[in-house]
Amino acid sequence: MTSQDYMQIALQEAELAYQKGEIPVGAIIVSPSGEIIAKNHNLTEQLCDVTAHAEMLCISAVTSHFGTKYLSQCTLYVTLEPCVMCAGALYWSQMGKVVFGANDTKRGFEKIGNLLHPKTLVEKDVLADNCSKILKDFFKKLRK
Amino acid sequence: MTSQDYMQIALQEAELAYQKGEIPVGAIIVSPSGEIIAKNHNLTEQLCDVTAHAEMLCISAVTSHFGTKYLSQCTLYVTLEPCVMCAGALYWSQMGKVVFGANDTKRGFEKIGNLLHPKTLVEKDVLADNCSKILKDFFKKLRK
Repeated sequence: MTSQDYMQIALQEAELAYQKGEIPVGAIIVSPSGEIIAKNHNLTEQLCDVTAHAEMLCISAVTSHFGTKYLSQCTLYVTLEPCVMCAGALYWSQMGKVVFGANDTKRGFEKIGNLLHPKTLVEKDVLADNCSKILKDFFKKLRK
Repeated sequence: MTSQDYMQIALQEAELAYQKGEIPVGAIIVSPSGEIIAKNHNLTEQLCDVTAHAEMLCISAVTSHFGTKYLSQCTLYVTLEPCVMCAGALYWSQMGKVVFGANDTKRGFEKIGNLLHPKTLVEKDVLADNCSKILKDFFKKLRK
């Protein structure tokens, strides 16, 4: 599977968020063998919890399920550039690689600097147009 | 109650963390009327979850319990300067005021810049010596 294939699955998660009236962001975590070991989407409205971003839910799920705090062999795919909070969590998890779709010029971590672990690889602009479109559609619909 | 009084209660939470073998950091959230509406301590080891910092657990508890995402009328007291992840969560919660004890020169958010919401007030060095001492004692014991 390519980064695009995995991002497509993260996009399906974003679609589920859209249908629930959540800001449509989806994420998955992939093991070293290529298996998807977590997938989730933004649930801040449903859980009434500002920390319930897709990335946070995936990190918590994987670490508590597998009993390991460090995900240095794993890859996180997320449809939107992580925010400062999520970048901070990714640092603590020592995530091996972070792949994201759309840029977040307002609240994305890259604006602040490299907040990730020094060993974390980054790949961006993967299906960026599709990842961005679902967000634009969501906010357009919200403003109607 | 003064900031010192509230920090003393956050320190009691840090003490509970210490007893469990967790890095001893405690936090509480206080409502506008002065009532303590959340208290917790670092549980990263017990929950095997790098996101389970004292501040995160308090924010999630208050927002989901009260059904409000924004805590602009509340004050968070925490024994250690929040990390980048927690500062990002505090931003999203629009926390009214953040009061912390010891500085964290390595992973504290202030080193990166002001990551909090522009309206969030900050008070620091409250019982800093006591908040720092429990951390030093913990790491000294760990190295033995």
